[in-house]
Amino acid sequence: MKILVINAGSSSLKYQLFDMTTGAVLARGLCEKIGLTGAITHKRPGKANYAEDYPMPTHNEAIALVLKLLTDPELGVIESVDEISAVGHRFAHGGKLNKSCFLGEEEIKYIESIIPINPLHGPPALKGVSACKTVLPNVPHVGVFDTSFYSSFDEKAYIYPLPYEWYEKYGVRRYGFHGTSHRYVSAKACEFLGLDYNKTKIVSCHIGSGSSITAIDCGVAVDTSMGFTPQDGLPMGTRCGGIDPSIVEYVCKQSGMTVSEVNDALNKKSGLLGVSGVSNDMRDVRAAAAEGNKRAQLAADLLTRYAKKIIGSYVAEMNGIDVLIFTAGLGENDEIARQEIGDNMEFFGIKINREVNLNAPRGENLVISTPDSKVKVVVIPTDEEFMIASDTYNLVK
Amino acid sequence: MKILVINAGSSSLKYQLFDMTTGAVLARGLCEKIGLTGAITHKRPGKANYAEDYPMPTHNEAIALVLKLLTDPELGVIESVDEISAVGHRFAHGGKLNKSCFLGEEEIKYIESIIPINPLHGPPALKGVSACKTVLPNVPHVGVFDTSFYSSFDEKAYIYPLPYEWYEKYGVRRYGFHGTSHRYVSAKACEFLGLDYNKTKIVSCHIGSGSSITAIDCGVAVDTSMGFTPQDGLPMGTRCGGIDPSIVEYVCKQSGMTVSEVNDALNKKSGLLGVSGVSNDMRDVRAAAAEGNKRAQLAADLLTRYAKKIIGSYVAEMNGIDVLIFTAGLGENDEIARQEIGDNMEFFGIKINREVNLNAPRGENLVISTPDSKVKVVVIPTDEEFMIASDTYNLVK
Repeated sequence: MKILVINAGSSSLKYQLFDMTTGAVLARGLCEKIGLTGAITHKRPGKANYAEDYPMPTHNEAIALVLKLLTDPELGVIESVDEISAVGHRFAHGGKLNKSCFLGEEEIKYIESIIPINPLHGPPALKGVSACKTVLPNVPHVGVFDTSFYSSFDEKAYIYPLPYEWYEKYGVRRYGFHGTSHRYVSAKACEFLGLDYNKTKIVSCHIGSGSSITAIDCGVAVDTSMGFTPQDGLPMGTRCGGIDPSIVEYVCKQSGMTVSEVNDALNKKSGLLGVSGVSNDMRDVRAAAAEGNKRAQLAADLLTRYAKKIIGSYVAEMNGIDVLIFTAGLGENDEIARQEIGDNMEFFGIKINREVNLNAPRGENLVISTPDSKVKVVVIPTDEEFMIASDTYNLVK
Repeated sequence: MKILVINAGSSSLKYQLFDMTTGAVLARGLCEKIGLTGAITHKRPGKANYAEDYPMPTHNEAIALVLKLLTDPELGVIESVDEISAVGHRFAHGGKLNKSCFLGEEEIKYIESIIPINPLHGPPALKGVSACKTVLPNVPHVGVFDTSFYSSFDEKAYIYPLPYEWYEKYGVRRYGFHGTSHRYVSAKACEFLGLDYNKTKIVSCHIGSGSSITAIDCGVAVDTSMGFTPQDGLPMGTRCGGIDPSIVEYVCKQSGMTVSEVNDALNKKSGLLGVSGVSNDMRDVRAAAAEGNKRAQLAADLLTRYAKKIIGSYVAEMNGIDVLIFTAGLGENDEIARQEIGDNMEFFGIKINREVNLNAPRGENLVISTPDSKVKVVVIPTDEEFMIASDTYNLVK
């Protein structure tokens, strides 16, 4: 059974075609600059990449081009679109949709209704579904939601200490994000380590340009650092994470900015970029720090510090930890971040094997703790697309 | 040497007169409703309390009355104001004043200059100083600042992951509060337990209607939960603590409230009050919870949960913990809060002795951990006034 996975952003559309009998990726690619000039990069394992500028006024032209390439005699991997059995769509926010489900009229209407709490990701994701349904009207379309991994949350984990009516009237609560990634890597880590997922205390660090840390206690997500929005938790490329909320009003008053302008700065001008003044990309930040830029060093150090603190808070909540996972852009590829987060954590039973960590090959599952480390520390490359394909497969099979 | 300690609020003025040769409190009291009808309560150890309604248009009349009572032939404890050698003034915020100091013209001007970051506590504290200087012009006046305990902070502990110019231009950083209390109880705990303050890892929980938790690593404060304002950290009577800052703009948009109105709600309608809908007083909240009010139970549980998380984060930062302290209104008197915060923390070596904790006498230093608990858990009644008197004494002697 072949399943197409779609991840639609405001001006982009990522796709992957899986053969679920083997789990193999047949093709993957990225449509960019939708609404602008338009461009596609199309990849097939073992073959040369194909790239083309192509007008894509909307997501409709993008998905039509994707299907054209997938079935192209030369560049394609299937003979006909009829081979595609289902489409899995990635949603950052599912609101009350607490598990992956078929996207019928009712579900689509519900997702439209929660656009106020999901203004950035909701509209493009819905456009992606609409475009795919136009060209693939006869196959099931499945929604997979980053938030649904947190449907296990206790009220204590999702209610903020705010006026309760803000939760009732406006839906202000901790939703959590990156759930598809945390779900994938936490299960994968246990499989890799030969541990029983339902008996293991896990802290999973998804650290990239957006970052979140999730606590999974014996099979159940019990806390996560992103909250009402992906703005909560630890500092990220351009986001500040959780801060003293009084700063918002104070900066409005001092600077003359509106609350929306300040919020925009919290989202787009903070984190690594805001502190370093150099870049939102950790590679640039580390390079500047290496050349003696103290604010760049501070920016990198803040990420380490907040990550440590959140890990510690989850160890307290779970009264223990068995496995610490690093994944995503920085988690997988920034050995310095892993080293500094894991260093001086012996009290928790965490000991990083410096040599193994600093020489870790990329893209592989790997234990980076010492043999005598009570906590297994692992790098697990994330694969949200496979998780989406897998959920879709399980629903349609 | 006799030292008067003054803690001036917007419509109140607390005072204590210490005899520093013995450390004894000779008298203490509270002027209330300053600017309104005016009232004083005056207490002397072992004697009946005295209360009187008395017009106090400003802090000047309040302090004049205090001195009148202190020297009153019947109600007083000294013969003349000349016996007062110095006055110690409590300041919530000292900005860059990083230790207790004499309040000369320069210091007063500096404190006036930081009113924008300290709008609530700054002006009344300055009024208190001005009033006291008028009636006691010939003695030294000393300022003791809650923030100065945190002058040991590393940049990593005080810089928020925000645009760096907000720190440079507007002074947005973690200042921390309750420092005088944390300084007192942490030193007291080590004295009480016979531990070397400079070799002990301490987490100090000041939990009252305002709450903060501080990490003290071998004699040095390394982190604290209140931040730019006393609004950061754990949920309090009416304050929310640290939250996803994007909530501010979202609630502005949804409710039509201004950013100042939302900020006001974060400060005055959140925390225990906001979640329970019952009260900002934990006793009322617990009573409602006992009668089956689920939101009241949730409010109490949130306090426990956040406290645990912050403790865990500080254990991670210090790579260990030797002593856990409870102090202030709830920390000293709410044995349920202590029990629930300390329960299920065996991974950290924390074991509360249930019987001792639940039957703890009030107002005493007490170990509430089990004999085999690796971490000593103690209740230490706080005494900020003594600390202020002591700093003042050390400066003037």
